[in-house]
Amino acid sequence: MRAPANLKSKDTTLDIVGVAERLYDQIGFQKTTVADIARELSMSPANVYRFYAAKSGINEAVARKLLTEIEAAINNVVEQKKSANEKLRAFFEAIEKSHLQRFALNRKLHELLVKAYDEDWQILRPHHQVVHNALAEIISQGNREGVFNVGDCAEAATQVRTACIRFCHPRLIVEFAQDAKPTLDQMVDLFIRALA
Amino acid sequence: MRAPANLKSKDTTLDIVGVAERLYDQIGFQKTTVADIARELSMSPANVYRFYAAKSGINEAVARKLLTEIEAAINNVVEQKKSANEKLRAFFEAIEKSHLQRFALNRKLHELLVKAYDEDWQILRPHHQVVHNALAEIISQGNREGVFNVGDCAEAATQVRTACIRFCHPRLIVEFAQDAKPTLDQMVDLFIRALA
Repeated sequence: MRAPANLKSKDTTLDIVGVAERLYDQIGFQKTTVADIARELSMSPANVYRFYAAKSGINEAVARKLLTEIEAAINNVVEQKKSANEKLRAFFEAIEKSHLQRFALNRKLHELLVKAYDEDWQILRPHHQVVHNALAEIISQGNREGVFNVGDCAEAATQVRTACIRFCHPRLIVEFAQDAKPTLDQMVDLFIRALA
Repeated sequence: MRAPANLKSKDTTLDIVGVAERLYDQIGFQKTTVADIARELSMSPANVYRFYAAKSGINEAVARKLLTEIEAAINNVVEQKKSANEKLRAFFEAIEKSHLQRFALNRKLHELLVKAYDEDWQILRPHHQVVHNALAEIISQGNREGVFNVGDCAEAATQVRTACIRFCHPRLIVEFAQDAKPTLDQMVDLFIRALA
C-alpha cells in the first residue's frame, strides 16, 4: 500500500531538511549546494526544487528546525513543577545554553542562526512569539503565586525579553562572551525585584 | 613665532580626523582613501601616514570622535540638577537619540560605528568605561536621595547597561527599530522598580 501523497511529501521535506542540517553543520550553509543535498538523498536536484523553490528556503527550514529545538527546551521549562522564580531562571538558562552549545560544537549551524538574525528572516517571528508566550505564562504564574505583582504580563514579558537579549541573541552571546558581568543570575535577580 | 611642534602635531591630527569624518559622512569610510584625505588638506599621503600608520587608525579616530560626542551628552546629563530617576531616563535617551540621529542623517558614519561594534574595536573600551561610570554615578545619586537601595552601584550599572543594550548599540537600534515595545520609558520604569 502506498503512503498518502501528502504524507510522503512531508517525509521528503523532513529528509531534505535533515540532510541539509547535517551538511550545513559539516561544511557550512554557504558551501552546501542543492546538488549536494540531492546526491545524499539519491534524488535529482530538480526533485529537491519541487519541495523548496530556492536554497534560501532550505536555509530557512534548517534555521527554523534549530529554533524549534530551543522552543522545546523552553516549553519543557514552562511545564515543570517549579516556582515562577525558578522557571524564569531556567527559561533564560535554556536559551543561553542552546546558543552556547551550538557555538562550541556546531559553529557552522550557529553561523546560520546569526545570519537569520542579521537579516531578520521571517521564520524568527513564530520563534519570538513562542518565547514571548512562555515568558508571559511564567510571569502570570508568579502573579498567581503572589511573588510578582504585574499588571500586564504580556508587556512585562516584552520588557524582560528585551532586557535579556544579550543572553538570547546568537550574535550578542558571542559579542559579550568576554564580559564576565552581569551574569544571567544577576539579571534574573534584577527582574525578580522589578516584577515583585 | 612658530607653534611648538607637539601643538602643531596635535592640530594636524585633528585636521586629518575632521576631514576624514566629513569624507566618511559623504562617501563612506570604505570608499575614502588616504589620498582623498591628504588632497583635502593639501598635503601628501606620506605626510598623513606620519600621523596615522594605516587607514584603520583614521577609522578608529573618527569612530572615537563620534563616541566622544555621545560621552559629552552623557556627562551633560550627569551634571544637570535633576533627580536620579530623571537622569536615568535622560541618560539612555541621550544615547538612543545620538544613534538614531546618526542613522537618519549621517548613515555612513553610523555604518562606521556598526563596524566598530561588530569587530569590537579597542576604542570601544574607554567609551564603555565612561558610560559605565556615568551610570554608576546616577545610581549612587539615587542611593543618596533614598529612591534607590543598591548595595553595589558598579554591579548595578553593569546590569542596567546590559539590559538597555537594545537602545545603546548601533546595530541593535536598527535591528529593533520596528518593535514599538518595549519603549525606553518602560525599560527605565522597570529598572527604577528593580533598584528601589
